[in-house]
Amino acid sequence: LNVLVNGHESACVDAADRGLQYGDGLFETLAVHAGTPLLWSEHMQRLADGCARLRLPPPDPECLQREVMQVCAGQERAVAKVIITAGVAGRGYRRESAAPPTRVVSAHAWPAYPDSYAREGVAVRWCDTVLGINPRLAGIKHLNRLEHVLARAEWAMEFAEGLMCDSEGYVVEGTMSNVFAVIGATVLTPAVTVTGVAGVMRSQVLQWVRAQGYACHEKRMTPAVLEAADEIFLTNSIIGVWPVRTLASRSYALGETTYKIQKATEAAQCFYTVA
Amino acid sequence: LNVLVNGHESACVDAADRGLQYGDGLFETLAVHAGTPLLWSEHMQRLADGCARLRLPPPDPECLQREVMQVCAGQERAVAKVIITAGVAGRGYRRESAAPPTRVVSAHAWPAYPDSYAREGVAVRWCDTVLGINPRLAGIKHLNRLEHVLARAEWAMEFAEGLMCDSEGYVVEGTMSNVFAVIGATVLTPAVTVTGVAGVMRSQVLQWVRAQGYACHEKRMTPAVLEAADEIFLTNSIIGVWPVRTLASRSYALGETTYKIQKATEAAQCFYTVA
Repeated sequence: LNVLVNGHESACVDAADRGLQYGDGLFETLAVHAGTPLLWSEHMQRLADGCARLRLPPPDPECLQREVMQVCAGQERAVAKVIITAGVAGRGYRRESAAPPTRVVSAHAWPAYPDSYAREGVAVRWCDTVLGINPRLAGIKHLNRLEHVLARAEWAMEFAEGLMCDSEGYVVEGTMSNVFAVIGATVLTPAVTVTGVAGVMRSQVLQWVRAQGYACHEKRMTPAVLEAADEIFLTNSIIGVWPVRTLASRSYALGETTYKIQKATEAAQCFYTVA
Repeated sequence: LNVLVNGHESACVDAADRGLQYGDGLFETLAVHAGTPLLWSEHMQRLADGCARLRLPPPDPECLQREVMQVCAGQERAVAKVIITAGVAGRGYRRESAAPPTRVVSAHAWPAYPDSYAREGVAVRWCDTVLGINPRLAGIKHLNRLEHVLARAEWAMEFAEGLMCDSEGYVVEGTMSNVFAVIGATVLTPAVTVTGVAGVMRSQVLQWVRAQGYACHEKRMTPAVLEAADEIFLTNSIIGVWPVRTLASRSYALGETTYKIQKATEAAQCFYTVA
């Protein structure tokens, strides 16, 4: 698999890089279709927001796009990952100098999820691992992902995803996805203002449901609210929309609203189906 | 400066390493005096605890000690840093295989803190950046340190340290140190059961004050309790004990208890003075 580190074909990152030392950086994971990165400007906007939040220089989207296309060249479908770190600097939490950021651009095989995940829905569990609350890190896709790693380690393959709550007990997201609930004609998703990731596909879905006139709220919600919902679905840039078939002791029928949203995101070519 | 990656003289870590990708790993920072790492067994115990918590294989302390002595060879005083990560694995939060951990051992110059810090005390501020609460990560010295990086970025050099609270408003620690309060004949330090780092020097101080018969508690405390204390001091493996001279609008006289603890830790050769 292809990797570019600061534009050079290399798998080598300096051991003194603040990305390794402290997780001082950001990343994006995106779908690439026949050489074209999907939802590119949305991913670049979130990355720029993250850089502003971490006080890193803004990335050059044209340079990154060239590199993403380079590592994914010749692949019908691929996952591209872009990492931006605070670069190489001395020991200590303080960034001593304005070191140039490090960028790592890599291509990965498209994941082999069963077709049934998108068509028939997935089995989902609750995770015990919580997400710490920190408004300064909320929403951005930073490199401090131990909580998600520990949550994902709670099960093997018997569930497609696990849902996480924050340290106050409110639902936040899946380990690798955002979560939505449909209750009557209302669409809800957890706010990501105190923790969690503001997913690019999450934003696409929010735009679409608002444009369609659904009542739509981003708010904190308890696990009980989610479990009592009519429909639940998961989103991310690679999976698109997955309906949830079971969560804890609840089963959900395949819902009409979820189906419409799934079709809309596919039709808008912000995502394309497996089949 | 000397760096060993998996025992080889190299500054290169694989870009796919989970330490970079997710902060999936741990570190230790320790003082090395004339080739001897100080408080070695204590650092190795905390590292082993961290590995157990993150479900990483336990490190080989003899191998690490050899490598620490190798990178610090010939230096009268040095700081050694040991990083253990979950190693190289595919994309995704799930550790797909039992990849061997990556270890990075590096030597760094002893920091040039003014002598006055230990003798006359330091000026300290409150940080706005909070620490998220997560019992599964509390106490261990993991690689997810963005909160500390952001806190340390709140000031330049006008303070020696900044104190951080958790997301519920309780005092936790300094960005690079633990904090103690002396109130009458009682010594207090924040518990590190929901967030924070269980510092090796913190443990040394707790042992000593308990052996001396002080009343001593690890508990959650508010900033107001800390500000109202008779004495405050900071600890870590490199600085030893620094008395706090000012915090916010409070000034503190150099306290007798702090002085005794400082001398005791130095005399026990778990730390040695600059002068």
